[in-house]
Amino acid sequence: MTTYNLLLLPGDGIGVETIAEVERIVDFFNKAGKVKFATETDLVGGAAYDKHGVAITDAAMDKAQKADAVIFGAVGGPKWDGVPYAVRPEAGLLRLRKDLGLFANLRPAICYPALADASSLKRELVEGLDIMIVRELTGGVYFGEPKEIVTLESGEKRAVDTQVYTTSEIERIAKVAFDLARRRGNKVHSAEKRNVMRTGVLWNEVVTATHKSYAPDVKLEHILADNCAMQLVRNPKQFDVIVTDNLFGDVLSDEAAMATGSLGMLPSASLGAPDAKTGKRKALYEPVHGSAPDIAGKGLANPIATIASFGMALRYSFDMGEEADLLDKAIASVLAAGLRTGDIMQPGMNKVGTAEMGSAILEQL
Amino acid sequence: MTTYNLLLLPGDGIGVETIAEVERIVDFFNKAGKVKFATETDLVGGAAYDKHGVAITDAAMDKAQKADAVIFGAVGGPKWDGVPYAVRPEAGLLRLRKDLGLFANLRPAICYPALADASSLKRELVEGLDIMIVRELTGGVYFGEPKEIVTLESGEKRAVDTQVYTTSEIERIAKVAFDLARRRGNKVHSAEKRNVMRTGVLWNEVVTATHKSYAPDVKLEHILADNCAMQLVRNPKQFDVIVTDNLFGDVLSDEAAMATGSLGMLPSASLGAPDAKTGKRKALYEPVHGSAPDIAGKGLANPIATIASFGMALRYSFDMGEEADLLDKAIASVLAAGLRTGDIMQPGMNKVGTAEMGSAILEQL
Ligand SMILES: CC(C)[C@H](C(=O)O)[C@@H](O)C(=O)O
Ligand SMILES: CC(C)[C@H](C(=O)O)[C@@H](O)C(=O)O
Repeated sequence: MTTYNLLLLPGDGIGVETIAEVERIVDFFNKAGKVKFATETDLVGGAAYDKHGVAITDAAMDKAQKADAVIFGAVGGPKWDGVPYAVRPEAGLLRLRKDLGLFANLRPAICYPALADASSLKRELVEGLDIMIVRELTGGVYFGEPKEIVTLESGEKRAVDTQVYTTSEIERIAKVAFDLARRRGNKVHSAEKRNVMRTGVLWNEVVTATHKSYAPDVKLEHILADNCAMQLVRNPKQFDVIVTDNLFGDVLSDEAAMATGSLGMLPSASLGAPDAKTGKRKALYEPVHGSAPDIAGKGLANPIATIASFGMALRYSFDMGEEADLLDKAIASVLAAGLRTGDIMQPGMNKVGTAEMGSAILEQL
Repeated sequence: MTTYNLLLLPGDGIGVETIAEVERIVDFFNKAGKVKFATETDLVGGAAYDKHGVAITDAAMDKAQKADAVIFGAVGGPKWDGVPYAVRPEAGLLRLRKDLGLFANLRPAICYPALADASSLKRELVEGLDIMIVRELTGGVYFGEPKEIVTLESGEKRAVDTQVYTTSEIERIAKVAFDLARRRGNKVHSAEKRNVMRTGVLWNEVVTATHKSYAPDVKLEHILADNCAMQLVRNPKQFDVIVTDNLFGDVLSDEAAMATGSLGMLPSASLGAPDAKTGKRKALYEPVHGSAPDIAGKGLANPIATIASFGMALRYSFDMGEEADLLDKAIASVLAAGLRTGDIMQPGMNKVGTAEMGSAILEQL
């Protein structure tokens, strides 16, 4: 029987609780007996800082390099607002992305039918919504150098961040977007600010060139990032796949996630390039939501986004599409049956905690 | 009688039609006789490129430097997609901002009561919405150097944009935000990505320090820009004033404008520092919407945002708050009476064109 190695990194806040529910789901699939998932757990973010003084240790990075997939909870919280920049909680996540080469961040923005009314957008605008945001994750302003604060002779400080993109970085993320579009609605919007940014000009140029091998079946439209932010509010269903850079992807994917009304439900996958020999991709899966320090440790968190992230792992890392479908269906059934954690509570529904929600999904499975 | 010099820059697309309506409003105030507005008109954007090969001429810049206020229409359109980067239509606007030192961009996101149903957000979330977004406009990634595309030895291209902020740049925009908050709801949200960007760290630090002279009456909250994008969808009414950098301001203000449902109605002001001697600020006023090439020249454009931009000029450049209120009221009455241009048309309302809308507002005045 094939054994897959999973590294679980709960991190901070509600990450700890939601990853605990994933462990129960993993146990279920182990008992089902088709494959074996061997799990290890380690620290990341504030939890790692508290114990080791860094946001992730080299030892944990080593485990991540060797794992078939990393399942990540969340990092950060006010407790660590004052820690030095280099060891702030987010640095752990950023190092994982960079060192594992996870350049392709897939963020589905889906409206679960049972939650269409939970959106702040009008029901008809979000019902059936299904967007895939493909965000470049290892380039742009997140990692470009110089990135520094210097004190000038005048006593003033001067801060710099540098956004860098090369042809090949843009090309490989464009391919991911076009390949995904082929299996979906055949439409890609590429968002940048070519009217202001040189990286936007190159982005536009390379995406257009890459598109040639996907035309005419896949349609490409270029959209300015500010207009994209507007259109996601005005009429999100006009989108199928959106491909964009690291920073715009951060903002636009969060906006889209909130528009669905299903934020606590949304998973994401961060993938590396396929290995030249084995074809395997390094991968990290994490919920779109954060560590929610205000409700952490109280058993109130919604575990669905983290469980659905494991579902994406089944699909993208382990070629277990059927099992992933099963898990997605179990989640939809539990919602249809009226179970809700506090974040998605609606009048007349049945309010449950983290563990109850996990149990209900297990039962459905 | 005081004479004020206005430079009108209609630019491209619907800018030409909407500025024509502003001229009629200016005439009205000239006849009213309290002050005299002397107007000049010049080219900017694609129109300037077609005639002079640049997005704005030195002569037009000279007029802008001398004017008491610039009223700007819109620039750009597919016609100029292929022109060299340095002379693309947007370069005209960016040069105006930079050379006039217009560092403070005020973008009200207001929901006109008559249009609450036009928002894609649920009515109760936007009714009465009144946010002021204060965007830094002459720094950040828009103007930082290096800003270039180079071809590497490998044949690959490498594009770079540089985001730069200094203490004093952040301090002066923070002051604008805090001063405005004092005349409004006494609450400022400062949006950045301090968890990823060094400019975000400095931004956070300087805004916090500047806040000291405004506490405790003005409240300050720091919010990550991605979270801000979410919260603008979830519950926009939680905001009073939002202060943010050039790029986040571009995206967040467009998102907020669309959320109001009143996009075609929203004006903006771009202000420089007060002159050491006269106390006067250089100023440019422009609608938030773009040049809408698809409906340009057809007499269909909504002139309200551009007229309301002149209203902001009355308020911020000419100390004519009463007249500005009058103009705002005239706009509200016309809407309440059921007049709508195509962009804001609703069932049962009275559809009118650009000139009819202008006439109706004049009549109300
Ligand atoms: C935690 C933070 C560094 C991260 C990011 O900015 O990428 C988060 O906002 C995300 O979107 O995954
Ligand atoms: C036209 C363009 C250069 C401009 C910008 O990006 O600032 C516009 O989007 C705006 O928001 O005024």
